[in-house]
Amino acid sequence: MMHKFTVLEKIAAAKQGNTIAIAAADDSSIINAVKKASDQQLASFLLYGDSDRLKELMKEADLSGDEVECINASSAEQAADMAIKAWKTGKATLLMKGIVSTDVLASKILKDKSLIKPDTILSQLAIFDIPSYHKLLFLTDAGINIAPSLEAKKKILKNAVSVYTKMLHAEPKVAVLAATEKVNPAMAATTDAALLSVMQRRGQIENCLVDGPLAVDVALSAQAATIKRIDSSVAGDSDILLVPEIESGNMLYKSFTYAAGAVSASLLVGTNTPVILTSRADDSNSKYYAICFALAAASFA
Amino acid sequence: MMHKFTVLEKIAAAKQGNTIAIAAADDSSIINAVKKASDQQLASFLLYGDSDRLKELMKEADLSGDEVECINASSAEQAADMAIKAWKTGKATLLMKGIVSTDVLASKILKDKSLIKPDTILSQLAIFDIPSYHKLLFLTDAGINIAPSLEAKKKILKNAVSVYTKMLHAEPKVAVLAATEKVNPAMAATTDAALLSVMQRRGQIENCLVDGPLAVDVALSAQAATIKRIDSSVAGDSDILLVPEIESGNMLYKSFTYAAGAVSASLLVGTNTPVILTSRADDSNSKYYAICFALAAASFA
Repeated sequence: MMHKFTVLEKIAAAKQGNTIAIAAADDSSIINAVKKASDQQLASFLLYGDSDRLKELMKEADLSGDEVECINASSAEQAADMAIKAWKTGKATLLMKGIVSTDVLASKILKDKSLIKPDTILSQLAIFDIPSYHKLLFLTDAGINIAPSLEAKKKILKNAVSVYTKMLHAEPKVAVLAATEKVNPAMAATTDAALLSVMQRRGQIENCLVDGPLAVDVALSAQAATIKRIDSSVAGDSDILLVPEIESGNMLYKSFTYAAGAVSASLLVGTNTPVILTSRADDSNSKYYAICFALAAASFA
Repeated sequence: MMHKFTVLEKIAAAKQGNTIAIAAADDSSIINAVKKASDQQLASFLLYGDSDRLKELMKEADLSGDEVECINASSAEQAADMAIKAWKTGKATLLMKGIVSTDVLASKILKDKSLIKPDTILSQLAIFDIPSYHKLLFLTDAGINIAPSLEAKKKILKNAVSVYTKMLHAEPKVAVLAATEKVNPAMAATTDAALLSVMQRRGQIENCLVDGPLAVDVALSAQAATIKRIDSSVAGDSDILLVPEIESGNMLYKSFTYAAGAVSASLLVGTNTPVILTSRADDSNSKYYAICFALAAASFA
């Protein structure tokens, strides 16, 4: 079967004129990802960090050319400030996290309201190519909001739907996850899921089909839905999984990656343009896919 | 690689003289599991349910012999009451859930304190053979306790350790899961995990090695631990995963099964002898492994 991430690469390749500012790029797996994206002519890059170290890493990766510019910063913190400024002023169209923590980057972004879309919150949106699943699968929010309220879940869902529709020009099927398909007043995950599904039917959430509460087996397997007698257009064919809180999101994320052999990429969304997230444990391939994901998700083109 | 569940089968085969009472056995996948266990001479069975239907299913499965007895019950509810009575009075040594819901069975058990071990609570203990992991992996509690307190988590952990040590005659490595390895006062999963790990070091939890908070990647992958610079004897070699609440447990369980291709089996523990759990969506193989798991975990022999 064709690698599902090639869809992202193709959409990304069709977007022209992007410049990506990287906050603290002085890391070999980031430079290797930039090299791969640059070879594909996906974007231009502004690399903020220790310029001596950056040049050394670029030489090792055989990366050069007019499309890549190094800008010296005295610390990772300063590199983040400079990259955010380039993004804010339009010198760069996209921002990418380098070897600065997500917390630090997110709190810097949160300080400047002009960087965030009106009436939303920041959330993490991940995408997976799971060998055993038949299409790309989105997961949100596994990284930013610890225990979101119903109102926050609605905004997280809208952030994900916005990216999905811009990227794939189709309406996603959203499974709002819980431990059971039954509404149980003692489990907020189930009541919030039920409320979100009715909100969608009442037009309070647009451009998607929402069903919940659904457990992961029903969300991913039509057979499980049949056995459990769950009648749902989302069951077995989910595009987006919305988790109730960070613990289940994080565990599902890591289980897909470490137990199910998935390749993943993540964005920070809710910002004017998606921010490319990376984690230390990701290899350069995963970082390259994150670049493709952001380009594919960007609304300008 | 050898199927990891064969370890369970071997331990189960060494246990003699067990009788398993099945609460509402009138279901083909249960009868097929009984057939397989009976062919291996693992135990005798008392099948409670509609006796006409039971005999029909036994005929279809080519199941017969002195080791299998059918007892008529007028409803699944009555079958559960009769099976529990057989288990309580010692006519059966183990109880198995048939086509009665876990909630109904658990609430019937909870009504009779003599069925529960002193100073503990009921919890679910699952076991997985995940192709990408190097050994059997236990997960608790993905099915009974919705949002356990620290004290409840301690009892859930002790229930799991008790089964593990009886079964494998070794001390398990326990990863207490959270979304991060850092202690964050805003995330109870991380503080409870840290407290459980210190409790173990202070001798308040025995016969195991506990570390937490750990995210799933670090719990399952030594490489992830190295990259994240987490120094832990549990990292990458966990035997038991303890989850913070039912949502993350259920999602991890379903992800292992539906995305990572795992075979699973579950018990209800905290009772005098483990109760064999099954779910409608399980095939007869999974139900057979649940029988092996219970026999292997039973302390009498």
